Amino acid sequence: MVNLGREGKLRLSSSHTTEYATSLELDFFSPIRWTDNQFFLLDQTLLPQEETWIHCTDLEIVCDAIKRLAVRGAPAIGVAAAYGLAVAVGNSGPESFDAAYQTLMATRPTAVNLRWALDLGRDLEQEMPAKDLHAGLIAWAQKLHVEDAETNRRIGEHGKELFAQADRVLTHCNAGALATAGFGTAVGVVQAAFEAGRLGSVWVDETRPLLQGARLTTWELKRLGIPHQLVTDSSVGALMSRSLVDRCVVGSDRIAANGDVANKIGTYTAAVMAHRHGVPFYVAAPLSTIDRSTPTGNDIPIEERASAEVSMIAGKDMTPSGTEALNIAFDVTPAELVTAIITEQGVLRAPYEESIAAAFARAAA
Amino acid sequence: MVNLGREGKLRLSSSHTTEYATSLELDFFSPIRWTDNQFFLLDQTLLPQEETWIHCTDLEIVCDAIKRLAVRGAPAIGVAAAYGLAVAVGNSGPESFDAAYQTLMATRPTAVNLRWALDLGRDLEQEMPAKDLHAGLIAWAQKLHVEDAETNRRIGEHGKELFAQADRVLTHCNAGALATAGFGTAVGVVQAAFEAGRLGSVWVDETRPLLQGARLTTWELKRLGIPHQLVTDSSVGALMSRSLVDRCVVGSDRIAANGDVANKIGTYTAAVMAHRHGVPFYVAAPLSTIDRSTPTGNDIPIEERASAEVSMIAGKDMTPSGTEALNIAFDVTPAELVTAIITEQGVLRAPYEESIAAAFARAAA
Repeated sequence: MVNLGREGKLRLSSSHTTEYATSLELDFFSPIRWTDNQFFLLDQTLLPQEETWIHCTDLEIVCDAIKRLAVRGAPAIGVAAAYGLAVAVGNSGPESFDAAYQTLMATRPTAVNLRWALDLGRDLEQEMPAKDLHAGLIAWAQKLHVEDAETNRRIGEHGKELFAQADRVLTHCNAGALATAGFGTAVGVVQAAFEAGRLGSVWVDETRPLLQGARLTTWELKRLGIPHQLVTDSSVGALMSRSLVDRCVVGSDRIAANGDVANKIGTYTAAVMAHRHGVPFYVAAPLSTIDRSTPTGNDIPIEERASAEVSMIAGKDMTPSGTEALNIAFDVTPAELVTAIITEQGVLRAPYEESIAAAFARAAA
Repeated sequence: MVNLGREGKLRLSSSHTTEYATSLELDFFSPIRWTDNQFFLLDQTLLPQEETWIHCTDLEIVCDAIKRLAVRGAPAIGVAAAYGLAVAVGNSGPESFDAAYQTLMATRPTAVNLRWALDLGRDLEQEMPAKDLHAGLIAWAQKLHVEDAETNRRIGEHGKELFAQADRVLTHCNAGALATAGFGTAVGVVQAAFEAGRLGSVWVDETRPLLQGARLTTWELKRLGIPHQLVTDSSVGALMSRSLVDRCVVGSDRIAANGDVANKIGTYTAAVMAHRHGVPFYVAAPLSTIDRSTPTGNDIPIEERASAEVSMIAGKDMTPSGTEALNIAFDVTPAELVTAIITEQGVLRAPYEESIAAAFARAAA
């Protein structure tokens, strides 16, 4: 279903089509919808209090949703950007493609799936007749949407094999269905392990500043009926020193060629604590999150976001007036701390250059 | 000014007096006030938005203030408990002493300064005539109040010697004037280093769940004119991997005989990260925080607090209904990760059993 495109990057099959569904029917939960030829995103900033869908009628709405994290998570951003290209070309014609590509690319720097999806869209744009481009982009975005969920299902199948009975697993941020087109990466593994009877409960750390753990992962686990308990981010050490964590599993925004992992701020700290306490630390991610053109974690651009995301909570300023916060959105976990990377092409282990190359080769076969 | 009492514990001089000030005038900021023979505590739960003083007219108000963290920080709790004994005996007579002692002791389990102060109060109660007890307790509480601030001033003087020019120092939670009778322990060291021209700026981590860093340490540093920037708790690793932290200094709620340190949850994680990155990790605390009757950190009782402190922020429930949080209030940092313990009797280093014994001997000399 996938192969290697120009520059050896992972891409979808180039058998482009203009046939798409007016309404894409899915048998799984997705934060992304295509209904009556309209594009909708679940506004994750309002969860868990409100389930509001954003009607993405133009490119600006899509970009705004990505920037303010109404849609977030590397795979979900990729699929949202694909639909965003379709919406832009539908509104403004094929000649608007390049501007839409650039505008979407500039929304967020760290998650490589955004660039991956946009580059696939550009390949398509260069191959298809202009008259077919709008339909082609919709069909392609739908394919990306369905295939991402299928990819995550396969990540879950591979990942569950790493779990033992009644495991207590810690996850950071949200790498669930909400962060993807469906199923999720880390939460997909948790779900598969739970369904296989290999999971006892989940420690959800709240993930300041935007509380993706407290707001989103809890919401998903509740829907899935998986036992869980919330903790502050700084509880990781205390939990591990009490031997209350058997494994960690997190998602990723970008994995470098050497296996270094960029993910939500705090991931590195959790990985160091896991290493100290002998707790396996897994990263669950599709191959589309692995950026072989980025040699190491030092080369991954790390987004810094607004100070007010830290100093204000629930609309209230918690700090004295004038307090400035440094809001680093991601950190880099060196490959040496990663026990395994769980992909749709199996469980990869160090040395990662080799296991990653082999996984890409399997995908292309 | 101090000596060793029964069981070799640190205690104030036993030269008890009944002479006290109707209004205790202080030349430093204190979150504790004795004015017109009335006892007041600054309500730290309302900072930084409001400066409201709680008029502690009875024991119940004092205990409630301690339990809900209106007054917090090991040294401040000790002094507040001392005044609490005086208030109880003033209201209900000398025969109420034992009940007041027990009630105050039950408020919070981890900070040993509470027990230390209450035991000193009990010594006094057993030595003084009942008719003098009320006046004696007030005089003693005032002495404890002033001496704690003086102790912290000395901690700062010793601690500043560890700093170099333009150091960027990270502190966790609040170990400032608000956490003590005055000056603070960790923030006292920061202030002394700043005044000596040896400090560039302070990284304040917010310290979830109750945001003592974001609300209180920022408030103090702003008052002191010390440059600072707020970060989330999970930023510690990213800051250190960018070489943005030169030193860490934190307070403590209880230090075991072997040098293991109980402090606000997240301290252990910060210490592990500091160790990994070669950043010195200092604990600033008075000898009254060192509990030589507790052999190791494993023997320190660790408070767990209400789930809602994690799941609710600024009065708003951030999580899906029914979400349970495990709210461990403190963790234990093993002595091996502590570069030095800064006390009023100098800077202690490993092996801590020996350096702690020597410091107590100096205090008793």
